Amino acid sequence: MARVSQEHLDARRRQILDGAALCFARNGFHATSMQDVLKEVGLSAGAVYRYFSGKDELIEAIVGEVLEVVGGVFESAAEQSPPPLPDEMIPSLLATLKEVRPGVVQDGEWIFPRLMLQAWTETVRNDDLAAVIHAGYDRVRAGWAKVVEGYRAADLIPEDVDADAMARVMIALAQGFAAQMAVFGELPPQTLGDGVRALMRMRDPRAGA
Amino acid sequence: MARVSQEHLDARRRQILDGAALCFARNGFHATSMQDVLKEVGLSAGAVYRYFSGKDELIEAIVGEVLEVVGGVFESAAEQSPPPLPDEMIPSLLATLKEVRPGVVQDGEWIFPRLMLQAWTETVRNDDLAAVIHAGYDRVRAGWAKVVEGYRAADLIPEDVDADAMARVMIALAQGFAAQMAVFGELPPQTLGDGVRALMRMRDPRAGA
Repeated sequence: MARVSQEHLDARRRQILDGAALCFARNGFHATSMQDVLKEVGLSAGAVYRYFSGKDELIEAIVGEVLEVVGGVFESAAEQSPPPLPDEMIPSLLATLKEVRPGVVQDGEWIFPRLMLQAWTETVRNDDLAAVIHAGYDRVRAGWAKVVEGYRAADLIPEDVDADAMARVMIALAQGFAAQMAVFGELPPQTLGDGVRALMRMRDPRAGA
Repeated sequence: MARVSQEHLDARRRQILDGAALCFARNGFHATSMQDVLKEVGLSAGAVYRYFSGKDELIEAIVGEVLEVVGGVFESAAEQSPPPLPDEMIPSLLATLKEVRPGVVQDGEWIFPRLMLQAWTETVRNDDLAAVIHAGYDRVRAGWAKVVEGYRAADLIPEDVDADAMARVMIALAQGFAAQMAVFGELPPQTLGDGVRALMRMRDPRAGA
């Protein structure tokens, strides 16, 4: 029997994960069967089960990969001085996700954000998935906190700002936009940036400035 | 047969909706059966089906009520001059939800945000629910846009700020915090406020100020 190259194995794995992501985003995690996934990727059960034991393992792998990408975005942003501002970071984060997961499309619409909702919802009953999401979130939160430190070093935020609280707000913005895109359809990146910048430009009358 | 008072009918309806909300938040919408709901509320099938035809109608009613409450919060905020600032609005919105839906608790934790995720996820396959959420979102978005107009009238934001883009950012913040609470547990209101204020206090070097 011919030896199968690592490259081939990786491509197969990629094909399965992309097909599963599309199924979950399109029909929801619960309404998708492994049979649907096999049909979507055009592989036999034997070929797919060699890689993944079932739907739970598939969604865990998909989510783990995405959080890896998101974590990397913040880590490289934190290395810039000053890091890109929030109104640039948030749209660029979503643009990166679209670049790395371009195939999750239905009727021309990028429906990847729906998959994010499915994953959050599933954490209630899937402890392994919850563990993957917790670990990824901790990394993203630490990455954002480093970006906030970069803002502070460049004197863009006051000394006494709580870096972790600000990190959680930034993550909430990305999560909230994903929720809006999942429920109401794609959002122009311009709107995201304009809205975040509006909040940054707000005058606080309590500061007496 | 004794005539049943409107008050009694309303209380019954409330009891059913609260029990269903708890079931959906605790175990997820898909894993909850009507049997689970009957058991939770302690009523017969006949008593419950008199009000709701099934799970879909239950979640639509629950979500419709909540969006009604949220819409009202923004409408009354917009009447104040100036309206409360975003770092006060976001925590107070979540506090209001907790006040009006205090019973959605498991092991001492308020798990209502999980129900919000369930509802967003369900819009993929339930068009009536999607319609309820779209109408509620439009109202909330219009309410926030009025609040933003109030900020502008009080000279707290620049003239050229896009009120709708800012409204969408505010809604994203609330949605994102709900997602974090659903997945990672309750967030101190103080953290929410501090994080939003940090973003408001950011200096924009591009503005040359």
